[in-house]
This record gives sequence, structure tokens and C-alpha cells, in this order.
Amino acid sequence: MSVPKNAPLRGIVAYPITPFQEDGRVDLTLLRQLVERMVKAGVHGIAPLGSTGVLPYLSDEEREAVTEATVQQVAGRLPTLVGVSSLTTERTIHHARFAERAGSTAIMVLPMSYWKLTEEEIVRHIDRVAAAVSLPIAIYNNPATGGLDLSPEVIARLLEIPNVSMVKESTGDVNRMHRLVQLCGEEVAFYNGSNPLALAAFVAGARGWCTAAPQLAPELNIGLYEAVMRQDLVGARALFHRQLPLLRFMTAHGLPRVIAAGLTLLGIPVGPLRAPLLPLGDAQVEELRRLLDGLGGLKG
Amino acid sequence: MSVPKNAPLRGIVAYPITPFQEDGRVDLTLLRQLVERMVKAGVHGIAPLGSTGVLPYLSDEEREAVTEATVQQVAGRLPTLVGVSSLTTERTIHHARFAERAGSTAIMVLPMSYWKLTEEEIVRHIDRVAAAVSLPIAIYNNPATGGLDLSPEVIARLLEIPNVSMVKESTGDVNRMHRLVQLCGEEVAFYNGSNPLALAAFVAGARGWCTAAPQLAPELNIGLYEAVMRQDLVGARALFHRQLPLLRFMTAHGLPRVIAAGLTLLGIPVGPLRAPLLPLGDAQVEELRRLLDGLGGLKG
Amino acid sequence: MSVPKNAPLRGIVAYPITPFQEDGRVDLTLLRQLVERMVKAGVHGIAPLGSTGVLPYLSDEEREAVTEATVQQVAGRLPTLVGVSSLTTERTIHHARFAERAGSTAIMVLPMSYWKLTEEEIVRHIDRVAAAVSLPIAIYNNPATGGLDLSPEVIARLLEIPNVSMVKESTGDVNRMHRLVQLCGEEVAFYNGSNPLALAAFVAGARGWCTAAPQLAPELNIGLYEAVMRQDLVGARALFHRQLPLLRFMTAHGLPRVIAAGLTLLGIPVGPLRAPLLPLGDAQVEELRRLLDGLGGLKG
Amino acid sequence: MSVPKNAPLRGIVAYPITPFQEDGRVDLTLLRQLVERMVKAGVHGIAPLGSTGVLPYLSDEEREAVTEATVQQVAGRLPTLVGVSSLTTERTIHHARFAERAGSTAIMVLPMSYWKLTEEEIVRHIDRVAAAVSLPIAIYNNPATGGLDLSPEVIARLLEIPNVSMVKESTGDVNRMHRLVQLCGEEVAFYNGSNPLALAAFVAGARGWCTAAPQLAPELNIGLYEAVMRQDLVGARALFHRQLPLLRFMTAHGLPRVIAAGLTLLGIPVGPLRAPLLPLGDAQVEELRRLLDGLGGLKG
Repeated sequence: MSVPKNAPLRGIVAYPITPFQEDGRVDLTLLRQLVERMVKAGVHGIAPLGSTGVLPYLSDEEREAVTEATVQQVAGRLPTLVGVSSLTTERTIHHARFAERAGSTAIMVLPMSYWKLTEEEIVRHIDRVAAAVSLPIAIYNNPATGGLDLSPEVIARLLEIPNVSMVKESTGDVNRMHRLVQLCGEEVAFYNGSNPLALAAFVAGARGWCTAAPQLAPELNIGLYEAVMRQDLVGARALFHRQLPLLRFMTAHGLPRVIAAGLTLLGIPVGPLRAPLLPLGDAQVEELRRLLDGLGGLKG
Repeated sequence: MSVPKNAPLRGIVAYPITPFQEDGRVDLTLLRQLVERMVKAGVHGIAPLGSTGVLPYLSDEEREAVTEATVQQVAGRLPTLVGVSSLTTERTIHHARFAERAGSTAIMVLPMSYWKLTEEEIVRHIDRVAAAVSLPIAIYNNPATGGLDLSPEVIARLLEIPNVSMVKESTGDVNRMHRLVQLCGEEVAFYNGSNPLALAAFVAGARGWCTAAPQLAPELNIGLYEAVMRQDLVGARALFHRQLPLLRFMTAHGLPRVIAAGLTLLGIPVGPLRAPLLPLGDAQVEELRRLLDGLGGLKG
Repeated sequence: MSVPKNAPLRGIVAYPITPFQEDGRVDLTLLRQLVERMVKAGVHGIAPLGSTGVLPYLSDEEREAVTEATVQQVAGRLPTLVGVSSLTTERTIHHARFAERAGSTAIMVLPMSYWKLTEEEIVRHIDRVAAAVSLPIAIYNNPATGGLDLSPEVIARLLEIPNVSMVKESTGDVNRMHRLVQLCGEEVAFYNGSNPLALAAFVAGARGWCTAAPQLAPELNIGLYEAVMRQDLVGARALFHRQLPLLRFMTAHGLPRVIAAGLTLLGIPVGPLRAPLLPLGDAQVEELRRLLDGLGGLKG
Repeated sequence: MSVPKNAPLRGIVAYPITPFQEDGRVDLTLLRQLVERMVKAGVHGIAPLGSTGVLPYLSDEEREAVTEATVQQVAGRLPTLVGVSSLTTERTIHHARFAERAGSTAIMVLPMSYWKLTEEEIVRHIDRVAAAVSLPIAIYNNPATGGLDLSPEVIARLLEIPNVSMVKESTGDVNRMHRLVQLCGEEVAFYNGSNPLALAAFVAGARGWCTAAPQLAPELNIGLYEAVMRQDLVGARALFHRQLPLLRFMTAHGLPRVIAAGLTLLGIPVGPLRAPLLPLGDAQVEELRRLLDGLGGLKG
């Protein structure tokens, strides 16, 4: 970690959902609108094909179409971070190369589990993917979805691979972030992926917040980042508490379900989720409506 | 559960690995040999495309080829139980229908997680798959690989679907099995998928033991089942303790890794695993050699 | 473990509650009646001052009075196993010596936690207690109450201390028992302390079942043990399923609460629990009444 | 929570160990010196008989002596927070009343578990203790030592008891703190008891940090608090990272063990720990020496 690495993301890294048409096909037109909307709202990066974008539920062809549509829509105005994770190394390399050719700024890799991978298998997997492209790579740690928990020590080892320069931590444990800084130094580029941890993570030194929330409350997300940047702790805490009920709701009920319902409530109808995922139930939609109404003053 | 259901498996249900050639392609010839070997050894069922068969690491085409090769090789001598799980409902239905056309006796579905599924999503998923075929269906609960934990209460609910007639429980907690019997009655057809729990599960009333072990020690596996069937508790316990070190080793190091190494030690060379999986390390291979040598008397 | 050790307990080891008078003092008269009742019912050992006997909620003087009353009431008809656990080594030794002087057959020690103890601290603690008495000692592993989880490997190490000859395992995981046999040999004297695991534990080779249940359903508890002893697996399973709802209820709601309520329902009024413990709520008492009614045929 | 409550602690609340003489008796003289040293160093409160003070390992008489010695030594210069927790309600009330008579500013109660307490039992327990004194009460949540985990919802319920005005949260999960603020409002007086969470907790709005660390590095502890108070986020983060290795070491190896060893390294010899606790091993003492040496510049 002695050489500064190319970590081209900071601030609010926005995760679009992958919308579907009524016939079940990916709705690329709506995807482009959602991306455009967040770029216009002032976010600092766009990350298609994350958990929010239901990456593992898409076919190879769908993934490629989403990558191209997003990169073209962003058109260089912001950095893009494209998810390329697959269970096998071969498919991950395939998608990493596709993202590179499509013009992505960086790629994100979640070491996924069916069989629990050994540390050696994780390192070898990332190493082979990294060798296949020259893009900067973000490692993604999310045991709740990926099924593997990368300790700070393993992450530090992965960061020794030349073009692995970023880490997205989604365990929701701020101690992991402090430990990572201890291991890798203050310059380590880590990003928070646990929405309710946004304030603590920025204070711990996170470069960015990877979040689907800008589809529903971009001003609050961006405002929190800016308050921390100017060391306005009191202001940051107030902004954080304002959006925390929404962030907790998103975490409790699943990002694709909540964002799809929230966009519909905000007047942007979104089609069905991909089965087996089902839409939010009626009572939850009402709770979400109340949460969004409570934030209204900032969005009007 | 009032009507007896068609649960066409019992005893030792053997799970072949999916072997690969040096060039990474599935080795269908060796797969047929492994299946034949276990049929000859006297197992009571064959289950391709389980966790042992690295189902989620295979392409759709590979899965179909494995299904056909296995069903043809067994050729009706034993029941077959083909794994058809996919993350999406659409792909699961596709593979369920393929297995039915290929002549499988029954299919197994693991509700898999990237996003944690709600109970409603799980029920709807299984319901739609069940409606698409007329084969008997086994539900598979394995939170360690699938990422979802189906409570006995949820399993009982799934067993109300007409052609869902079997459950494979792999949590390794015998209390789950007793609870399931409480909820569904003594006639519920449940199978144990946790190797070190084999004795306790049979005593709890399991109809069968779903296991990859018959690739390495079929006599011991079958012997345990037979001892329990004749209520020879002392004999069953002795047979169980004899194979327990091997069963624990398999669980600790992962079935595909251990079975591939073990077959090679037994004189049946197996090619590489599919990346990111790596072969057992040298020290572990030596430990496995000692374990297999210790069982030698029964296999000679 | 090469020399056979003195492990003077087998079968159903019955745990009396510690009853209290309305004024909060220990009701030694009722305690003696409860002990007598279980001896008459045919249990194989009596164990005062267990978790059921709310050991940690009693003063030193109360513990001594309970020890004396129980040993005197049993009067050598059965072996007694007196709980002597305390947080500090000094107090544990005090109570171990008291139990020895009072005529207890054996003592039980639960390494308790406020601060998590290191393996070295656990071994030293037991070693010092064992050196202070010449009675046979049972180690008690119960992370749910004691806060420490002794692995089979640590238990095996403790069993090397000369007069440590027995283990009570209450994790509810039958794999621990099989592992212990692997480590210590078939002769290791282990006892099951998790009520819903009674059948699996006996099949795994447990010498006894440490349980408060004989205060409510002694015939069923004893019958299960006898069925396993005569290798009547089908009969054992039927007896087990018959009592399982009661055993699960006891585990779910806490032994002192359930046994006190159950005795009252059976016509033996028991006074208050020691605060902060509260009696079972009304709805739970009704559920318990139904469970006990359902067992009626065997007890009338 | 509508009326502002009396929460008389803020900043660095320092927890002295309970030192022992070679003969095993409490060393009240050294205790007074340790208290005086921390008062002089500028901490904002003194809390005897916490986990650090090995409260549960002391006899009633020892607890009373420690309470008196500490309150007398502080002599009103700072607020005192005396731990009064016991397993039974009766003993907790006894010590609460003793602390009140001895002149303590406030008391702390940890609902402790042997049997897991129901929510009703916890509330009743705290309610009865609170009714027995007129001092302000801090609830202490520490599942790792106390064995019970109080959810933010239960804590909010306890805070409705009139003289329960403070909460010490030791789960190490900053999300609990944010949730508590959501439930109780910004004015809720919560304190952090997890050393590695010190920065995140202050940023979340914690009034104070309950810690044994001022026995080893008071300037760093106080400096962190002051930096957060003046919204110097960059300075706070630097101070935090400087002390984090020590804080993590304390958490990993247990406060009484580490503080006793650390004081001895700093030239203040401390006698034995109370068995079963053992002193830090030699290798750990060396690691602690290096950690303390690394902090030297600030303490010389």
C-alpha cells in the first residue's frame, strides 16, 4: 500500500435498480432515466449491477446491456463502477473484460459463495480477475448477500494486488473500517455500503457511501457527505437522523423492493421485480409513503 | 399432509461430484463411471447436481448434459433426484421441466438467496416450480450454502403443496427433524443432508441420508442404514464412529474438494475443480489418505 | 482416559427445583418432598443445586442447607450430584468441600463467566477445585446459562484431571457428544443436559440424562431410557415424541418457571420464584396444562 | 422522556480496577491511589465496581468497602457512578441503598442473567431497584458479560421509569445508539462502554465514554472527547487511531487483566487477580509494553 493507488470514486456513489418491463425484460429506457435523474441530482458516481441492480438474477446478455446503457448514459460526466461478480472465475473475467471494453471507470468484485471459499481461493480468484483487466478494482465485502465474510486482514492482502485499489464494506460494523485503516494506513480507499452506518463511516474516513438511496432522497445523502467534509458534526448528525428512518427501512426490507416501491410513490412507475422477489406489501408501502412524506420539505 | 405422498427415495441417496477435464469441460464419461460405481456398490438412489455436483457453478447447458448422462446411466435401476435450483424462478422452472423430460424420478429445489427471500417469496417460488411439473419435489434446506434458513414451520407450509413430498435437512440440528415430525406427523419424508448427523437423523426417523460419501466408503454408509433398520443400536453406533472422522473431514473441507482428492487417492484420477475452487492442500490430502487407510479393512 | 474412572451416575438424573416460602426463604420441607417423590418414581440419581435449583440466586447458607437436606432425604438410596459452582475459585472450593462433608456422591462444576475465561483459566480453576476434594467431579458445559462454551477438546483436557470423570453437555448439539467420544474413547462418561436432545444423546452413548422433567413426567423419562437400553428404537422414538412437546416447552420458558407451574397444576403448590424471576404468565400456564393433560394416560 | 432528567455524568467516566493484596484481600490503599491518579489526570467521573472492578467476583462486604473508599477519595470533586448489580433483585436493592447512603452521585445496574430474563422480569427488576433509592440510575447493557441483550426498545421502556436517566451501551454497535436516539429523542443520555467504538459513539451523540483506559492513557482519552466537542473531526480521528491499538488490545484480552499488567508496566505494581482470572501471559505483556511505549510521547 506504499504507492498511492488510483481510486477514482468519492462521495455519494449511487446504485440504480435494474427495472423490468411487464413482460419481464430489462427496461433499459427507464434505467437510463433513473441514471440521468441521479446524475442531475448531483451524486458523485454511478454503480450499475450492484446488489440493488439484482446482478445475480440477470443473464449474461442482460448484464452486458445494462453495462452499456449505463456507461453511455453517464457519458463521462461521472465515474462509473460496474459490478462484474459471478460465482465462477471464468464468468467474472468475462464480465470484467466486457466492462472495460464498454468504458467503465472501475469495476467491483464481490467474492461470492456457494461453497465457502478458502482465503487462498479468494485471493487467487481476485488475482486472476485483476490480471485480466487494467481497470481499478473495488473489492466488495457483504456476507449478508455474498455469503463470505472477508476479514480486514484478508482485505488488506487483496489490496496488495496492483490494480485492486478500493474496498466497499457492507458488514455494518464500523470497527472493520478502523481496523482496515490500522492495517493499510490512512490512505486506504474504503467505501461504506451499509446505509445506517453512513455517518459513522464517513467519520471513520470512508471516501464514499455506496447507496441506492439517491433514487429517493439525494439531497439528504449528498448533504450528509458535504456536512462531514466541512467538519460540521452537529449539522451532519441532524441530517443523518433525518434520513435514518428511511435508511433503516431500506435495509430491513431489501433495496430492490424498497426502491421500486419508492420510485412508484414518487411518480416514476416501476414494473415488476424479477421472481422470486415480490413487491413490498401494502402495509409496507404505506409505511414507506409516510417516511417519504416526512422528508418532503427537502425534496419539494 | 393427510394423504400419503409419493416420496420415492429411501436409504443412501448418493451425490456424485461433477468431474471436469483438464480443459475445464465437464467430463461426462467419468461422471457415468462414478455413477455406475455407486449403483454397483448398492446405494439406493442417485442425486446429480447437488452441492457436491457444484450445481451453481455450471452453465445451463452443462446442467442439462449432466442430467441426461446421469439418468441414462442409472437407467431405471434406482430412483434419481436431480437438482434444479437457480436463483430465479424462471430458470428453476426451466431446469425442472428439463429434468422431467429427461426421465428423472424426482427433483430437488433449494430456495437460494442473494437477497434474503421473505416467507411469501419462498412459498410462491416453490409453488410456481411445483405447478410446472408433475414430478415429486424435495425441498432442500441448507443455510450454509443457500443462504436461507427454512424453519420447520415454513417447511411444513411448503409440504402442503401437492407434489412437494420430501425435505432434505442440512442444518445439522437434529431438533429440526423432531420438530418437523411434530408438525407434519410421523409419515413426513425427511432426509438428512449433514454427514456427521447420520446416526442421529436415522434414529429421529429420517427416510434417507443424502451424501457424497458413497464415492469413498459406500459399505460403511450402507451398513449404518441397515443396522438402524434392524434396530441394532450398538452396531449402528460402532459403524457410525468408524466413519465419523471421514464425515467430519468432508464437512470441514468441502465436499467437491474432498471427494475429488479421495477418488484420486483411491485410484480414480479426477481433473481440476472449477475455479474459484482449488484442490485440497498437500497436508490435507495426507490427512485424507490416513483416514481412508484407516477404513481399508472394510473396503478391501 | 486409559484407566476406567469412577462415574457413579447413570440413567435419569433428576434435578429438583429449589422451592421458596411466601416470605422468600427456601422451603426445605417441600424440597424434601419433591426429592422423595422423584426417588419413589424410580429415577436413578438426584442432583440438587443445578440450574433448575437456581444455584446462582442462593446465598452460601441457603446452598449449604439445600445440600444437607437433599443428601439426608436421599439417604444413600441413590447417588447424589451436588452443584457447587461459583464465579470465584475460592467459593467453588468452599462449596465442594461442604458437599463432600455432607455426604454427596459426586459434585458438578460449571465454569461460569462474567469475564470470559481463557482455556488456561478454566483448566486451572477445575484443577484447584478437584485437588480440594476426593469426590468424583462432573464438568458442566452450558453456554446459555454459564456464558462459556467448552469445546470437546477443552473438555477432553479437563477429563485428564484424576477425579474429573463425568461431563454434562447442555449445548443441545449431538455432534459435540460424538466428537467427545472420538477424543476420549467409548468409555467417556457423558450426560445430556438438553431436554429436547434426550433421544439423540442416548443413541450417541450418553450414560444419563440430567433433567428436571421427572418432577412432571417421570414415567416417560424413565421409559425412554429403558427403551434405548433394550435397543427398542421404535418404542424409544414413540416415547420421545410423546414427551417432546413438554420438553420443548420447558426449554423455551425456563426450567424453574415451568417446573414450579407444573407442580402446582399437579396439585403440589409451589411458592414464589426468587426475583427477578417471575412465574409463568396465565396463557403459558394454560398451554402447560394442556401439555400435561395430554400425557395423562401414563401418569394416572 | 418529555421532562429533562438528571443525568449527572459526561465526558470520560473512568473505571478503576479493584486491586488485590498478595493475600487475596482487596487493596483499598492502592484503589484510592488509582482513583486519585485519574482524578488528577482530568477525567470527568469515577465509576467503581464496574466490570473492570470485577464486581461479581467480590463479596458483599468487599463491595461496600470499595464503594466507601472510592466515594471518600473522590470527595465530591467529580460525580461517582457506583455499580450495584447482583443476580437477585434483593441483593441489588441492598447495594443500591448502600451506595446511596455512602454518598454516590448515581448508580449503575446491569440486568444480569443466569436464566435469561423475560422483558417483564427485566422491567420489574429495574423498577423495584429504582423505587428503593432516589439516586439517578444508569442502565447497563452488556450481553458479553451480563448475558442479556437489551434492545433499544427495551431500554426506551426502562427510561420511562422516573429516576432511570442514563444508559451505558456496550454492544459495540453504533446502530443501537442511533436507534435509541430515534426512539427517545436527542436528549437521551447514553454512554459508550465499548472502547473501540469511542469515536463513532461520540459522533452519534454519546454524552460520555465509560472506560478503564484512563488508568493507562488518560490524555488520549480526554483529548478525543475534547476534539469531538470542538467539532475537530480530523484531530479526533488522529487521536482515536493513536489509541485504537491499545483499546483493541484491552477488549481482546479483558480489562482487569490488561489494566493490571499495564499499571505494573507503568511502575505501579498491582497484586494478583482474583481466581479464576489469571494475569496476562508473558507474550501479551510484551505486546502491551510495545503498545504503551508507542504512546509514550503523550504521557512523558
